[in-house]
Amino acid sequence: MIKANDPNRRSWIKVDEGSDFPIQNIPFGVFIPEDDIITTGTRIGDTAIDLSAMQQLGYFKDIEISDDVFLQDTLNDFIALGRGINRQVRDRIAKIFDENNAELRDNEEHKARILFPADKVQMLMPIFSQDYTDFYSSREHATNVGTMFRDPDNALLPNWLHLPVGYHGRSSTIVISGEPIHRPMGQRKPKDADKPVFGPSVRVDFELEMAFITGEGKAMGQRISTEEAEEYIFGMVLFNDWSARDLQTWEYVPLGPFLAKNFGSSISPWVVTMDALEPYRCEGPKQEVEVLDYLKTEKDGAFDINISVAIQPEDQEETVVSNSNFKYMYWSMAQQLAHHTVNGCKINPGDLMGSGTISGPTPDSYGSMLELAWNATKPIPMNGGGERTFIEDNDTVIMRGYCNNGTTRIGFGEVSCKILPAIE
Amino acid sequence: MIKANDPNRRSWIKVDEGSDFPIQNIPFGVFIPEDDIITTGTRIGDTAIDLSAMQQLGYFKDIEISDDVFLQDTLNDFIALGRGINRQVRDRIAKIFDENNAELRDNEEHKARILFPADKVQMLMPIFSQDYTDFYSSREHATNVGTMFRDPDNALLPNWLHLPVGYHGRSSTIVISGEPIHRPMGQRKPKDADKPVFGPSVRVDFELEMAFITGEGKAMGQRISTEEAEEYIFGMVLFNDWSARDLQTWEYVPLGPFLAKNFGSSISPWVVTMDALEPYRCEGPKQEVEVLDYLKTEKDGAFDINISVAIQPEDQEETVVSNSNFKYMYWSMAQQLAHHTVNGCKINPGDLMGSGTISGPTPDSYGSMLELAWNATKPIPMNGGGERTFIEDNDTVIMRGYCNNGTTRIGFGEVSCKILPAIE
Repeated sequence: MIKANDPNRRSWIKVDEGSDFPIQNIPFGVFIPEDDIITTGTRIGDTAIDLSAMQQLGYFKDIEISDDVFLQDTLNDFIALGRGINRQVRDRIAKIFDENNAELRDNEEHKARILFPADKVQMLMPIFSQDYTDFYSSREHATNVGTMFRDPDNALLPNWLHLPVGYHGRSSTIVISGEPIHRPMGQRKPKDADKPVFGPSVRVDFELEMAFITGEGKAMGQRISTEEAEEYIFGMVLFNDWSARDLQTWEYVPLGPFLAKNFGSSISPWVVTMDALEPYRCEGPKQEVEVLDYLKTEKDGAFDINISVAIQPEDQEETVVSNSNFKYMYWSMAQQLAHHTVNGCKINPGDLMGSGTISGPTPDSYGSMLELAWNATKPIPMNGGGERTFIEDNDTVIMRGYCNNGTTRIGFGEVSCKILPAIE
Repeated sequence: MIKANDPNRRSWIKVDEGSDFPIQNIPFGVFIPEDDIITTGTRIGDTAIDLSAMQQLGYFKDIEISDDVFLQDTLNDFIALGRGINRQVRDRIAKIFDENNAELRDNEEHKARILFPADKVQMLMPIFSQDYTDFYSSREHATNVGTMFRDPDNALLPNWLHLPVGYHGRSSTIVISGEPIHRPMGQRKPKDADKPVFGPSVRVDFELEMAFITGEGKAMGQRISTEEAEEYIFGMVLFNDWSARDLQTWEYVPLGPFLAKNFGSSISPWVVTMDALEPYRCEGPKQEVEVLDYLKTEKDGAFDINISVAIQPEDQEETVVSNSNFKYMYWSMAQQLAHHTVNGCKINPGDLMGSGTISGPTPDSYGSMLELAWNATKPIPMNGGGERTFIEDNDTVIMRGYCNNGTTRIGFGEVSCKILPAIE
């Protein structure tokens, strides 16, 4: 077992019941503490932990990492070291913060340099992603979209069961939770109009996704097999792949979505490691069509992660509009990464790979407003009054995720983003 | 007029008749000279010029650039300074190398530090592109592809005349001229087969493109108008957007090309500035459908650049298979960049934006083997014997480009890439 995952361990840092961040989580992020120097950090309960300060004070001294690895603007240098080193650091953190370890617990001077209230630090983008890929791996989502826009009897396209469909996204507009995004302007073609019109999108939608972040990279010309794929994945985040449905419908043939997606995507700030997620590994959907050898897997590739979406209109309480689960993904991350590299495509540390919208089997588990309100035919009532078919100006969309196997609960925190009015 | 473009200027460096690099060009690139330190450079005739050495020796002393701007691994820091500063540097280079200027010409010690034979330096990737976008802006190409694979009577899709269709590509596999690329492995579905097979692509193709490189960036949420767009473009390169047609046909619905493209793309090493291209500005194709206001332009947005493709089979002479021109593009770079940012998409310095395959009006000006050999129905004979419908193992594809307005000729050199056998 990975030492840091020991379900019996408790920390000397207070952790509230139901917290996403018990000592069994130990995610990684980047923040600015009160004293204004960017650092890599982790979190236990409501306490943010400065890893560069810990290193300077000697807590990682026999682990092979450079002196400035936690002083970078992003996690990239750290995660490029690979899962072995990342695991040593995580295990060490678990040991230092164990309730029975007095080393830091009883050193007030060190604690003052290392610990900060989580709500007093500014979280930053944890990674630099040169490339961002988005998959389309939820069968229910692909079926719903195919049913609405193409043919209910042939909702899935012929390739869908044979390969994890994916496409390239725009890295430059991925932002951290809390950063607002303006409603995009663009072209759309109203039904029955003979030409397009220009204006703010009238169908801004979220997409409930999770994304994995690559750790060690792989050179151009080489492949990553399904068997070794998870060794190349550092961890996961919640991911909201904002979409403008009206722009998308008009622009996307024949080369895929472009401006309908690249106005912004939002990620949660704490990267939960694949090591932390290991206890929640589970069986995924049975793949009904036999896949080609390079996509076959031996072990279960799904993870039981509860994910939800809430909409909070301006000055109102929030309404949870979807409860889904990452385990519904038809294609596993290992299959996605093996497919992505089967042609020799180079992978860099910090690449972001989105799951695609995660829709579950029931209408209350769909992962987008397009599906939840079924192409604007079934408005969703808001608890505080009003209803929604898509996202309106000044609405905040909040996605949350957590795992609970009955013994231990860990979570991702949230990714929250407010849609501001378009700049016309 | 831009000073460096003076057609009457001659350099004290020898420039052969028909060279791509007279003193009116002054492109920028990155290379390792004989002494092994990476530097930004330019080129006149067959001489590579070390700009970091020139700066150290005081030749740029009253221009506002940092001491290490030419000592970076890429041009990004330099081009981020914007076209004003870039122009001052280019004008200064033109002045220093003018045949009547003795300052460097007669200083043998300085010349020994600054000048290198172009064939003795190693050219490197000139830019770091976080994001790479590929457009689809040649009407002839889009029409040819639509005719072959969809419907000859409705070859262009409904959006094509209203917006410059584009999609995101993979940055991690863009390589410099001279780097070989392996034939990709992947899934394809043979005609009449009921399921896909796995193996090396059997339809590897080039795409004759040019790409522009953004200079100064633009923040998220802001737009770049057509009027100001060229101020955000640093320069252009030749671009071969390698494509595996059999993988593409199977994978591309509904989200666009993915593994069929991201096994590799090749660029030429010298970035020719928009300033150098100014004398070759010309009228583009008339846009027959009135475009929305944000895509309207006042001045001519096309550039008269002759471009060609040659195939050189292993141990054979080359065969020129296409002669086209960048001026055939239906959508201008200014329109492409205005469209790309109309939704607030963030632009970074060094972003690469491909034109899409540039096909001219006649069959000998098509920009891909798919079109030249018309879906493998019209094989192209090779001068040294044999014929080609697509690219075979160990074939080298060479693209060249130049401008000639009768007064001055400048060029791009070439982008050359050999396709190696697949790694099975």
